[in-house]
Formats: sequence, C-alpha cells, structure tokens
Amino acid sequence: MVPAGDPTESTVAALSTLLSPGDVIIDGGNTNFHDDQRRAKTLAEKRLHYVDAGTSGGIWGLSEGYCLMVGGEAEICTRLEPIFVTLAPPDGYLRVGDHGAGHYVKMIHNGIEYGLMQAYAEGFELMHESAYKIDLAKVAALWDHGSVVRSWLLQLAARALAEDGDLSAVAGYVEDSGEGRWTLVEGIERSVPMPVLTASLFTRFRSRQNNPFGERLLAALRNQFGGHAVKKTT
Amino acid sequence: MVPAGDPTESTVAALSTLLSPGDVIIDGGNTNFHDDQRRAKTLAEKRLHYVDAGTSGGIWGLSEGYCLMVGGEAEICTRLEPIFVTLAPPDGYLRVGDHGAGHYVKMIHNGIEYGLMQAYAEGFELMHESAYKIDLAKVAALWDHGSVVRSWLLQLAARALAEDGDLSAVAGYVEDSGEGRWTLVEGIERSVPMPVLTASLFTRFRSRQNNPFGERLLAALRNQFGGHAVKKTT
Amino acid sequence: MVPAGDPTESTVAALSTLLSPGDVIIDGGNTNFHDDQRRAKTLAEKRLHYVDAGTSGGIWGLSEGYCLMVGGEAEICTRLEPIFVTLAPPDGYLRVGDHGAGHYVKMIHNGIEYGLMQAYAEGFELMHESAYKIDLAKVAALWDHGSVVRSWLLQLAARALAEDGDLSAVAGYVEDSGEGRWTLVEGIERSVPMPVLTASLFTRFRSRQNNPFGERLLAALRNQFGGHAVKKTT
Amino acid sequence: MVPAGDPTESTVAALSTLLSPGDVIIDGGNTNFHDDQRRAKTLAEKRLHYVDAGTSGGIWGLSEGYCLMVGGEAEICTRLEPIFVTLAPPDGYLRVGDHGAGHYVKMIHNGIEYGLMQAYAEGFELMHESAYKIDLAKVAALWDHGSVVRSWLLQLAARALAEDGDLSAVAGYVEDSGEGRWTLVEGIERSVPMPVLTASLFTRFRSRQNNPFGERLLAALRNQFGGHAVKKTT
Repeated sequence: MVPAGDPTESTVAALSTLLSPGDVIIDGGNTNFHDDQRRAKTLAEKRLHYVDAGTSGGIWGLSEGYCLMVGGEAEICTRLEPIFVTLAPPDGYLRVGDHGAGHYVKMIHNGIEYGLMQAYAEGFELMHESAYKIDLAKVAALWDHGSVVRSWLLQLAARALAEDGDLSAVAGYVEDSGEGRWTLVEGIERSVPMPVLTASLFTRFRSRQNNPFGERLLAALRNQFGGHAVKKTT
Repeated sequence: MVPAGDPTESTVAALSTLLSPGDVIIDGGNTNFHDDQRRAKTLAEKRLHYVDAGTSGGIWGLSEGYCLMVGGEAEICTRLEPIFVTLAPPDGYLRVGDHGAGHYVKMIHNGIEYGLMQAYAEGFELMHESAYKIDLAKVAALWDHGSVVRSWLLQLAARALAEDGDLSAVAGYVEDSGEGRWTLVEGIERSVPMPVLTASLFTRFRSRQNNPFGERLLAALRNQFGGHAVKKTT
Repeated sequence: MVPAGDPTESTVAALSTLLSPGDVIIDGGNTNFHDDQRRAKTLAEKRLHYVDAGTSGGIWGLSEGYCLMVGGEAEICTRLEPIFVTLAPPDGYLRVGDHGAGHYVKMIHNGIEYGLMQAYAEGFELMHESAYKIDLAKVAALWDHGSVVRSWLLQLAARALAEDGDLSAVAGYVEDSGEGRWTLVEGIERSVPMPVLTASLFTRFRSRQNNPFGERLLAALRNQFGGHAVKKTT
Repeated sequence: MVPAGDPTESTVAALSTLLSPGDVIIDGGNTNFHDDQRRAKTLAEKRLHYVDAGTSGGIWGLSEGYCLMVGGEAEICTRLEPIFVTLAPPDGYLRVGDHGAGHYVKMIHNGIEYGLMQAYAEGFELMHESAYKIDLAKVAALWDHGSVVRSWLLQLAARALAEDGDLSAVAGYVEDSGEGRWTLVEGIERSVPMPVLTASLFTRFRSRQNNPFGERLLAALRNQFGGHAVKKTT
C-alpha cells in the first residue's frame, strides 16, 4: 500500500520507466481526479495505461468485499475486470467513466459519507441533551428495524453506543482525509450549493480547534458594544 | 386515521368524555411532544391514560412492518405491548420513555431523515453537473453493495433514478411535514448546533420560493455599490 | 431596569393594578413580541395602553443616543413621541407598527447583528491563519476608510484589535441573549431560509461546548468503519 | 482596464518584454494571490518588480476614493506610495504584506462583503414575510442612526429600498465575481470553518439555478418512501 500524494506520484513515475507498452498501472488509493487525468496523459505518451480505482467499505472490506468504482479506458477496464470482480462483492464493481472517474465518484461518496454521519451525530446529540432520558444504543438498534433512516452507518453507531452509551472515553477530535475538501472544491468549481457536505466538513475543522480566533473576536466585539464581560483564558 | 393538529386535539377531547377510568388513548400520528405532555396530564385527571406512538417506514410499512417508538407510563405500555409487537417488525418496537418520548424520538428521526436525504441530494447533484458523464442510477445501485454509504434511502434513490435517470419530469418542490421544524426548535431550546438538519430544512423552504425577496435585495445591493446590472423580472 | 422575562411579566401585572384608564406602560427591554401582543390585549381590557420599544446602540447609547424601534397604537405612540425623540439621535426613532412590532424589528436587528459579527469573525480568522503575516488591527482600521465593508462593528473590531492584536487573553466563549433564537424560530414559522443567521447562532452554541457528544459520535463512527484511532479524553 | 484572468496574464507577459530592469508592473485588478506570487517570481528573474493592489469602494470610488490594499516588496511599495496615497482617501492605503498580500486581503474583504450582504438580506426578507406590515425602507434608514448594525451597505440598502420598497422589478439573480470562491478554497486549505461566508456564496449559486437536480431528487425520494405526490414540471 502506497500512501496518496507524493509517494504515489513517485511510485507511478518509477514504474513508468520499468513497464512495457500496453502495461497498466492501477491506482487503488485516494488520488485527486485531476492527478489521475494528468498521469494518464503522461503515461499514454509511453503507451502505458492508467486505471483509477476508488474503494469503499473500510476495514470491513476483507470480510464483506470492497465496493469498487473504476475509471479508465473502457477496453482496459474490461481486460482487468476479473480482478475487480474478484475483489468486489456481487454487483459491487462498476466502471463509472474515463480517467479519474473512479476517484471522482469515490470522492463524492466520501462527501456524502460526511453528511450522513453528521446527520446522525446531530440527531443523537439532541437526544443526548434532551430532558427525556433516552437510551441511545437502544434507539440506534431500534431504527435498524424498519425505519426510514436505517443504514450501515446506523448499525455502526448502534455498535459504538452499545459499547459505551455515553462515549465518555472518546475525544471528539474528528480528522478528515481530504476527499471531503476536494468534493467541496469541485462543488465551488461547478457552482453547486452543498450546504450539508460543507457543514459536515466544517464541524470536523472546528472539532480540532481550541479557542479559535474567530470566536475570540466575537467575544471581544460583544464586550466592545455591549459591555458584556469577557472570559479570560486561564 | 385522524390528521395531526386540531382534528387530533378535538378527537382526544371527545374520546375523553366517552371513556372509562383505566382506558387508554393511543396517538399514533405525528403530534408535537409538548402536546402529548399536556394531553397526558389532562387525561390523567380523569384517570385516563395516554400513549404516544411514533411510526417510521412510510408506505412500505404494510409489507415490511412499522418501526415503533412509544412513549407513556411503563405499566400501560407493557399492557399494550402485544399490539405494538404485532405491528412492528422483529425488534422494531421500543418504549423510549415517558409521555411524549415516542413522538420526540420520531421527531428527531425525521430531522435525521432530512439530513440523510440532503447529503445524497448534494452528492448526486454534483455528479449530475460533472464533466464526466456518470450513470447516476448505476452508481446508486453500486453503492448499495458494500459501500459505507449504503442505506435504505439509497435503495430508494436507486429505484427513482432507474425509473428516470434525469428526473426530468419531477419539479423540485419539496414539502416538509413539520417534524423537521420541531427538531430545530428543540435544538435551539437546548443550545445544540444542528447545521446539517437546518440546512436540509432551509433547502426545502427555498425549493418552494420563487424569486425570494432576500435574493432580490442582494441583486439590488450589488447594483448600488458596483453598478452591476440587475436582471429584471419578466 | 427590569430584566426581561418573569420579572418584567410580574412588574407589568403589578403596575396594571395601580394605573388608571388611559395610562401607558412602556416595555423598553428585550421582550418576545408574542408576549407584547398578549400583554397589550390583557391591559386593553382595563383600558390601559402598552408600548414596546426596542433599543439599539449598546453602552454607547448614552453618548451617541439610542436607536429606537417602537410598537403600539399610533395615537399613543404619537402622544409619547417627545420622550422617544429626546432619547434617540436625530432620525433615530420610528414607530414601526402595532403591538410587538418594536420588539419584532429589534429582534431581527439582533439576528442581523449576529450575522455581521460572524462574517467579520470568519474573515479575520482566515487572515489570522494565513501564511502572510497580516496586521489585523491595521487592516480593520484601513477598511474603515472607503471600503465596501465599513461599518460601526468594524470600527469596534479595529478598537479591540488595536488593544490586543492577537486577542490572546480572550476566551472565545460567546453568549447569546435570546433574540437570535427568536429570530430563527420566527424564520421557521414563516418558512424563510436563514442560513447565515442560523450559522452565527450555532457558532455561539458551539463556542460554549466542551467535547460535544455529536463530535464524539463522529470520532467513534470513524473508528468503527475505518479503524481510525480515537483520541481518548484525558 | 484589463479583465482579470487570461487578458491580465498575457498583458503582464507582453509588458515584461518591453520593460527595463527596475521597472514595476502594478496589477490593480482582482487577481488570485497564487497568480501574483507566480508572476512576481517570473518577473524577478528579469529584475522587474510586481505589485498587487486590491481596491474596494465600487463605483463610488471616484467620488469617495478607493480603499487600497497593496502587496509587494517593501522598498518598491514605498517608492510607489505617492500614487496610492493620491488614489486612496486619507488613511485608506496600506501595504499589507509581500507579493499577493494585497489581493489576498481584498479577496477576504469580498468574502466578508458577501456575508454582510446575506445577513441583511435574510433579516429584511423575514421582515418582508412578517405578519406586521413593516416599511423596510424606513427601517433601513432608521438603523443608520445609532444602531449596532449601521454600515455603508445598510445605507445602500436604504437607497435601494427607497427607490422601490418591494424590489418588485428586480430578479434575484445574484452573480459572484470569484473572490468569494477563492476565499472559501483558502479556508478549506487552512482548515478554517467559514459557515457564513459559504452560505452566502451558496445562496448566490442557488439564486441562479432553476429546478436543480438535488431538489428534484428530494421530491422523488419523498415520493418513493412516503407516497407523497410529486409536482410535475410544466
């Protein structure tokens, strides 16, 4: 497994000097689709082929199979199909388009994933803050049976809450792996409003901040015009 | 089936004059939990019992069973359990708390539902606007097999897109049935930030507006300071 | 000065037993307009009058005059006009409508105020995080001279930043006084999308949270599906 | 005046072949700061200097002076200061940093501008939809006198509303000139949450859409699970 970014870039470059015309490089990581398009073009000059494969399924992929979204020349993808069909669960493989399309669809998949997670997070937080004493683990498990909001992520939420209903040992420090940002940049490029995907990303940004400058300025402004007391950092 | 709001209110009032002490009224609609709490109190004075039952599953409930979230006195709910267990799919029934809790949990369920739907809507819109020609129906079906974003709503999206991949006959006029608003009001009451649930509700509001005043003011302001031409209504 | 809410409520009730027909009660605080409407009705039964006056200007009002938004019967407001005109700066008084309208307009004023503050806060935070070393106090002062974003709040930001360019002693704990919430509830009631006013309120909510449950759930979910390490609370 | 983007790019390239060492090119348009940095580097190889100047003030700049934010080498900016001081109103000129800083600060200025405008737009729309009959032009003028939300943009709103209180002839089609997008991309790059600036940009995107795909999908989904009738396009 080669990490995305520079390591992948240099690996592709190195491979391109070793391969023979007609050979194929498959990038199965999380590469930005613009990089896929550029690489495919460069490799084509040496009559090498490039295929980008986005995968979804997380650490469960080994037992349940990876969902595979593949981009590249149709003929080449057909040639490689036996590989993809073996890795994916039944009906879990699709060539979605030309160079970069596999990672493009995977990128948007991740943007959606952020939004789904955030929707559950907000709903469960509200139940957690409610005047009712609600057993969140039981509700998560309940909704898995016949409700409109049932999903695989909800099943995982039920698992996490069953282990620790208050998640008291967890620090709410939420990383992001880049695809959410790329999704947003593409949305800006295409003039597509994406308030939910954006709010989900920003919640993650905020979760990693400590006493951010913007909120300090808000407190300082309230003090300026209203004489409202300002809390001091300790 | 009695519509929520005034019809339910007057039906409950009428019933309360006909019932005998120990009898139970079940409100299986979408009532605001504050109304549940008030009614339960009023009925208790006549030694009548009140149970609120939120249901999820939509028009599929008949074939797949309704997911049932029930609120009310523990003893009374236990007495009625055979009814609920019959209606719900296996493990699809839960008494979630005291009076109003059933509708409270259902209310938040709907808020989450808005958020999930909006997350998919944004992602699919971006694919629709992409420079790639992506077959959205196929991607929706693909993701159902092993991906992190698989869910029942995604299956429904796959169905809708299989019928008409461009949804060209559909007007994007999106109603809301009230629970999303109540969820937001409760979030405001509890000081819980809910950017995703809110953005989902606002997208629905906006979908029903035509040339809203706020956007007219933005255009007029740009004209005032920048001399940018203003489009005229026709 | 009587605090809003119950103290005002009981003061109005007490006064109503002491006053004579034709007398006027002026509520110059931050009362919810629904309460104004209710009180005006109750007092009218005793032939007492009620006027609601929203004020803006903060602690600077003493030196610069209060901007006054007044609601109530036209005839009564005209009778009281000399008072309001004395308190307000030139052209700084207006009867904006019937009972509650004064507080209604003031409520929305505060909602807008949150949005303006948040817009500056985000922009200055980005400059603060920039790779450029930007003197924020100087930029705030600069923009006051001829730029499109000049405003009184910007002048206050320039003052605050001139005192402490990094605001390092300020804790970003941002209170809200209720009118922003009421504005949002009214927006929900009227089906008006208000993403900016809402995001501004939610930023304040979030500024007062410590390791909120929703973000803990996000971290736990990432661990469930991706095996991403979870930070522990310390 | 040379339009931003390619025309500016080719003009700079052409000029660079005509100028002599020590000469300075000033870009006074709305160039992306990344382009400024690149150009400055290229020109430096020919011992040419580059200065980027962001201006704010709109079409009022001629009468009121332009607010000028300038980036470039300190020595060069000092040499050119007489020009900038002549163009700007008193205290309306500042060298804010090295190459690109002028356009960087201007870019963020525009992001803030979007947020301020949107805050007013939402507040005035809510008053417009209110059950009260509020004279928006009078309220806008009132707030200019002593209120916390007074600003130059509010004065422009008062002007626009005085001309046509309902803005009935205006189509709410709101363009954006690019700097708001760049601000957001930079925020994503720096992990700074900017919900208000983003929502303001997305409102503009949405104002230019007609029956967007995402909203069609929402309507189709509601039909799938709830049997809710779908409006047909006409």
